[in-house]
Amino acid sequence: MRDVAIVGAGMTQFGELWSSSLRDLFTEAALGAMRSAGVDTLDAVYVGNMSGGQFVGQEHVGPLMVDALGVAGVPSTRVESACASGGAALRMGFLDVASGQSDVVLVAGVEKMSDGADVTTVLATASDQETEVYHGITFPGLYAMIARAHMASRGSTEEDLHWVSVKNHRHGAMNPRAQFPKAVTLDEVANSSPVADPLRLLHCSPVSDGGAAVILMPLEQARRITDRPVQILGTGMATASLALADRRDPAVLDAVGQSARKAFTMAGIEPADVDLAEVHDCFAIAEICCLEAMCLTDGCSAADAARSGFSALGGRRPINTSGGLKSKGHPVGATGVAQVIEIFEQLRGEAGDRQVRDAHIGVTQNMGGTGASSVVHVFRRV
Amino acid sequence: MRDVAIVGAGMTQFGELWSSSLRDLFTEAALGAMRSAGVDTLDAVYVGNMSGGQFVGQEHVGPLMVDALGVAGVPSTRVESACASGGAALRMGFLDVASGQSDVVLVAGVEKMSDGADVTTVLATASDQETEVYHGITFPGLYAMIARAHMASRGSTEEDLHWVSVKNHRHGAMNPRAQFPKAVTLDEVANSSPVADPLRLLHCSPVSDGGAAVILMPLEQARRITDRPVQILGTGMATASLALADRRDPAVLDAVGQSARKAFTMAGIEPADVDLAEVHDCFAIAEICCLEAMCLTDGCSAADAARSGFSALGGRRPINTSGGLKSKGHPVGATGVAQVIEIFEQLRGEAGDRQVRDAHIGVTQNMGGTGASSVVHVFRRV
Repeated sequence: MRDVAIVGAGMTQFGELWSSSLRDLFTEAALGAMRSAGVDTLDAVYVGNMSGGQFVGQEHVGPLMVDALGVAGVPSTRVESACASGGAALRMGFLDVASGQSDVVLVAGVEKMSDGADVTTVLATASDQETEVYHGITFPGLYAMIARAHMASRGSTEEDLHWVSVKNHRHGAMNPRAQFPKAVTLDEVANSSPVADPLRLLHCSPVSDGGAAVILMPLEQARRITDRPVQILGTGMATASLALADRRDPAVLDAVGQSARKAFTMAGIEPADVDLAEVHDCFAIAEICCLEAMCLTDGCSAADAARSGFSALGGRRPINTSGGLKSKGHPVGATGVAQVIEIFEQLRGEAGDRQVRDAHIGVTQNMGGTGASSVVHVFRRV
Repeated sequence: MRDVAIVGAGMTQFGELWSSSLRDLFTEAALGAMRSAGVDTLDAVYVGNMSGGQFVGQEHVGPLMVDALGVAGVPSTRVESACASGGAALRMGFLDVASGQSDVVLVAGVEKMSDGADVTTVLATASDQETEVYHGITFPGLYAMIARAHMASRGSTEEDLHWVSVKNHRHGAMNPRAQFPKAVTLDEVANSSPVADPLRLLHCSPVSDGGAAVILMPLEQARRITDRPVQILGTGMATASLALADRRDPAVLDAVGQSARKAFTMAGIEPADVDLAEVHDCFAIAEICCLEAMCLTDGCSAADAARSGFSALGGRRPINTSGGLKSKGHPVGATGVAQVIEIFEQLRGEAGDRQVRDAHIGVTQNMGGTGASSVVHVFRRV
């Protein structure tokens, strides 16, 4: 298996982008990534996209995107794993380069959510149609159940959730591409509108449009075009029952734990080696459950990590320096790739005000549904 | 890159399967493939599925399917390239094993089309929403334009189309899993209802439910569990403009030609080496255009191949011995994998009445939309 590196990245602003279509978002991100990498030909493209079909009436986005980019002909495949589509696409791009099949691969994620579709209904199709959607459940409802289960079994509190949002908005306030680049106070979170008890508006990631893209190539080739390639050291993917009710404990995200262990093993690292991570905080409780499943809090309480500063910029292990899904925005298919871009820029020392000092090892964790699919990647500054 | 082989296959009956859900179809096919291969653990799963979201309100089918199979935990990713989703999924499975990441991979295709959705509208989302769908075009209309363009520039006739259907139904009549296992006469085709001039009902593949699955592993490992592995010698994928109006000639399927050349080059073969092939006859004209693009008629007229017997069982190069999409059925996400199963069984000498004698090299060609994506694989009897 060949070593694989990321050599360039591009992304759009995240937000309600009324003047940009699905193909516009992809093209802007892809051109940015190609310019950043200094490449003008591609051997293959992978596009993470959750639901072009339901959001904008467009399946078959693989060929559409390379056509819009002006390179029709290039193999281009859509990869879908709900909100983990971007991470799953990166994994495909990694395998393509690692296998020796392709040398220059563009991995993108894109979603256009604010174009008129009933977003909550579309997102619900990432849960189990027959046993969950049919009965009217939505994702805020599912994550509210996870939060209640976590509070019941582990003693976490609503205030723990507030601190996750406060931390991520503080980070996002320094990210010019974030949808909501502003800090929020504990009181603002605590008094925001209830969505699904105990979750409030400021515990929930927003509805977003956006695109993100990176360029992969063999590490050996990468060294010839940049002095700062970022190597993909490990990839791990796992699944769990789609329906929350089928899990042994709703507050335990088994797929997240498994995918992390696989990626860490492949990379030859321990959780303690991780300098920073982007984890899937679609709701505040998700960040807590993910840190727990990935053993990223050095034995301390994951619920306390934001409040104590452990997971804040300047702390022991900064989590979601980009602002996370909460502040940066969550265009579902793009999120997994945008996480990778944050780690890429951090490991290259290009993260500006959000820069983590001496960052050598970064991790991304991207999940679909209530964690029925999870993809973890480990990156290293070369 | 490791050599990769197929060691087992399973598929459902194709047809209007009212009592089977999407997960039932997958599970039946997957269990059949695992039983056939004699494996009981999987390292990864790839699921080709065009539009679970629009057909049955279900995205995120990767984790759902492994959960239904009883192996939640296993990495499972949905791959979509419209009607080429099955072929694209095989390519992902191939790269996964070839790279050394996984040893035992299940590649499946599945679609549930007859569950109430407006099928023509859903299928149309595989064409360009902004420049085609918006104006009311459907796939029969698009392929009718391809047929007219082919007739105008190459002198093919409506009777040429009839012969493709007659041949494929003759083949399909010997396939117990076909949706319409019955022969049709030239007169029946010529007098069937007009759909989109010049295409008639018996030129069009049907609306189908079905699942198909194969098991991949490294060739070296495959030799230890079967004396008849079928090696995947080459894979090729290419794209073209999604909108037909953007192509240089609507009757020329550039992505099909490019994907075939890539797969043939990787396999080290020439078109003349191909003993049999399954090509994407979603409409009769498609088979003619595909044979032309792939140079599979040894310099003879592709339009004449069915009438002359060249592409019939017993002819120089049998095409669509399974009955093709026309007679076997076309559950869109499953089709690409079902094509592979026909070649797998032919190369192992298990095709019963449809058996092609002395078949060593077989090819599958699976495409999406009007050929905006195409995936070709070359297989060899080991």
